[in-house]
Amino acid sequence: MPGISTKGHQMPESPIRKLVPFAEKAKKAGKKVLHLNIGQPDIESPKEAIDAVKNMDLNVIEYSHSAGFESYRKGLAEYYRGVNIDVNFEQIMVTTGGSEALLFAFMSCFNPGDELIVPEPFYANYNGFAVSAGINVVPVPATIDRGFALPPVSEFEDKITEKTKGILICNPGNPTGYLYSRDELETLRDIVKKHDLFLFADEVYREFVYDGEYHTSIMELEGIEENAVLVDSVSKRYSMCGARIGAVVSRNQELMSTMLKFGQARLSPPTLAQIAAEGALKTPKSYFEKVSREYNDRRNLMVDGLNEIEGVRCPKPSGSFYCVAELPVDNTERFCQWMLESFEYENETVMMAPCAGFYSTPGMGEKEVRIAYVLEKESLKRALKCLEEGIKAYPGKD
Amino acid sequence: MPGISTKGHQMPESPIRKLVPFAEKAKKAGKKVLHLNIGQPDIESPKEAIDAVKNMDLNVIEYSHSAGFESYRKGLAEYYRGVNIDVNFEQIMVTTGGSEALLFAFMSCFNPGDELIVPEPFYANYNGFAVSAGINVVPVPATIDRGFALPPVSEFEDKITEKTKGILICNPGNPTGYLYSRDELETLRDIVKKHDLFLFADEVYREFVYDGEYHTSIMELEGIEENAVLVDSVSKRYSMCGARIGAVVSRNQELMSTMLKFGQARLSPPTLAQIAAEGALKTPKSYFEKVSREYNDRRNLMVDGLNEIEGVRCPKPSGSFYCVAELPVDNTERFCQWMLESFEYENETVMMAPCAGFYSTPGMGEKEVRIAYVLEKESLKRALKCLEEGIKAYPGKD
Repeated sequence: MPGISTKGHQMPESPIRKLVPFAEKAKKAGKKVLHLNIGQPDIESPKEAIDAVKNMDLNVIEYSHSAGFESYRKGLAEYYRGVNIDVNFEQIMVTTGGSEALLFAFMSCFNPGDELIVPEPFYANYNGFAVSAGINVVPVPATIDRGFALPPVSEFEDKITEKTKGILICNPGNPTGYLYSRDELETLRDIVKKHDLFLFADEVYREFVYDGEYHTSIMELEGIEENAVLVDSVSKRYSMCGARIGAVVSRNQELMSTMLKFGQARLSPPTLAQIAAEGALKTPKSYFEKVSREYNDRRNLMVDGLNEIEGVRCPKPSGSFYCVAELPVDNTERFCQWMLESFEYENETVMMAPCAGFYSTPGMGEKEVRIAYVLEKESLKRALKCLEEGIKAYPGKD
Repeated sequence: MPGISTKGHQMPESPIRKLVPFAEKAKKAGKKVLHLNIGQPDIESPKEAIDAVKNMDLNVIEYSHSAGFESYRKGLAEYYRGVNIDVNFEQIMVTTGGSEALLFAFMSCFNPGDELIVPEPFYANYNGFAVSAGINVVPVPATIDRGFALPPVSEFEDKITEKTKGILICNPGNPTGYLYSRDELETLRDIVKKHDLFLFADEVYREFVYDGEYHTSIMELEGIEENAVLVDSVSKRYSMCGARIGAVVSRNQELMSTMLKFGQARLSPPTLAQIAAEGALKTPKSYFEKVSREYNDRRNLMVDGLNEIEGVRCPKPSGSFYCVAELPVDNTERFCQWMLESFEYENETVMMAPCAGFYSTPGMGEKEVRIAYVLEKESLKRALKCLEEGIKAYPGKD
């Protein structure tokens, strides 16, 4: 029997996946599981997106251009101009989700063995794309003590070697919710300029920014036009994760034409979903205002509620719909499993994502969980109460 | 400015792509271009597929399971049983097109530097996935003289080294249209068994088989349950290339669970397209009968017509909607460009795919073109006449 590849063996398991069987068992046992573990919002997709597909006039579901429908790319360019990112449609390639955007960027920029610096904790699937491209992720720790702010320049400088080819950030952050300031981004700009690195930014949570803060894109920074690579997606913006429409944006022509070759090999991004995504460009401002208000309320409810639980601390992030909380327990993997297996409060329990899987450094994040506030407020309140009672009852409390 | 990766530099250009600017110029000059160069059928997608999307009742376009909707996978298993492939839904993973199926299979089975044997000419994008996975394609030549039949066993044996990890076939073939017999497939089975290799089969043209021939899947062969990996797609079957729904099918459990990890990293195949593909499972038999009759007529018209042109020869293939013809010209890349740039007959010209790009061995296929009979018969007749006149007029005739 032929054996599996080294890459196959290296592919990480999702930090949430391990808990899925326990959640299933809990449900079978009649418990209601409140899912704070996933990034699938409960928010409705814009009517404009769904109607575009339902009303399409199409007899053959044909390939699109490998870079996506030109009309959609032009619409995207206009959307970007509206958020202060000045690009034209030729600097945009439509991809199958932000996932493919990252994969194509990695494949085009890196040779196997090259190094990518990423502030940790970071979105765990970055590891999967790194394995696929044969590159090594080098973490720079951001800490809960500093609210997950950008680590000091010296920590980046310490990690830069001959093999370093890029830095990747997620802004606003998954899992931290942290929103980088313009100053922090300019610090990154100076590092990548000095060392001639690519700067990749996953900005898929751009619209989810609170407290009147401004989201600065790396595409707004001057002097790194050839270095900056924006990874984007409609998944979160329009609550249409299943569409699998993303984009990779860069002013680096050589990079764009190289990524297009990877795009040509896979022929075309999905056309039905492009029709939906192009429709979504017509989403009225009121949709985002409503969604943003809702997430802002949820965030306040969740983060304030967490900090009221004895022994719990949670920096209040300004973006995305996640937060990272430290719990007064021995180990959150064990605790989260215990919550599903052995605990219930008023017939409910809570599922969270243990944070260790979002760190690359072994031993980090063992007391932290990622919480996605993607449920309506009434459910979040019950989840908070349930978590509070769970911590009280947990035998492995610190 | 940071440089592009070696992989990026290695990514091949599509054999058709180079001609696209010449086709655009021809159109601007007012010529009508008859496209025999592409694999995008003009056939309508089944109403069942399009209606499934148009009538969907969906408020949030959510992720699906990373292996695809369970209902769709169960439906697919039933479809496979209908074509004599006995698999259950857990042996099927839904992918973003056949492209992703190949990529995941390569990433999971191969280490960088491993070798994959492929009879040539072969679908040019296999090269792109090989570059992405860091593996080397080792061609075994099939020749027009033998009608592109499977090369003799000895030619495979000659190419097997310590690094050989698999053999890939396309059946029925793109670009050749050749349909492997059960005997040929059993020969391949014996080779992969003997050397403990994976056998990958791209069977996306399964439904396009003529002259009452039977398509044998590698999944029907006994004794290679752990070796056989089927790559499939709805693109051609239902003329829905833009959906980007494929599947990878294997009875090798370790391989399936490894490929799923790559699937989890990219979260989910596109859901709208899965809805369409699940709808397509209800396509009545009459659809395929009509389509098959149409392609059969087109094939007869095209291949017979080609063989009537002086100096042209074209084996009559039993499958897919392509054929490979040898033309009496010095070099088909130059000839195809000339047809677009410098020739017209009754204000029309013909675009074909030069075959050199479908070969891995330099110098092979220089007199051959791939012709896709994806136009209605009246257009095909005009294309044949135009080609005949073009050959007569071409200054680089052999």
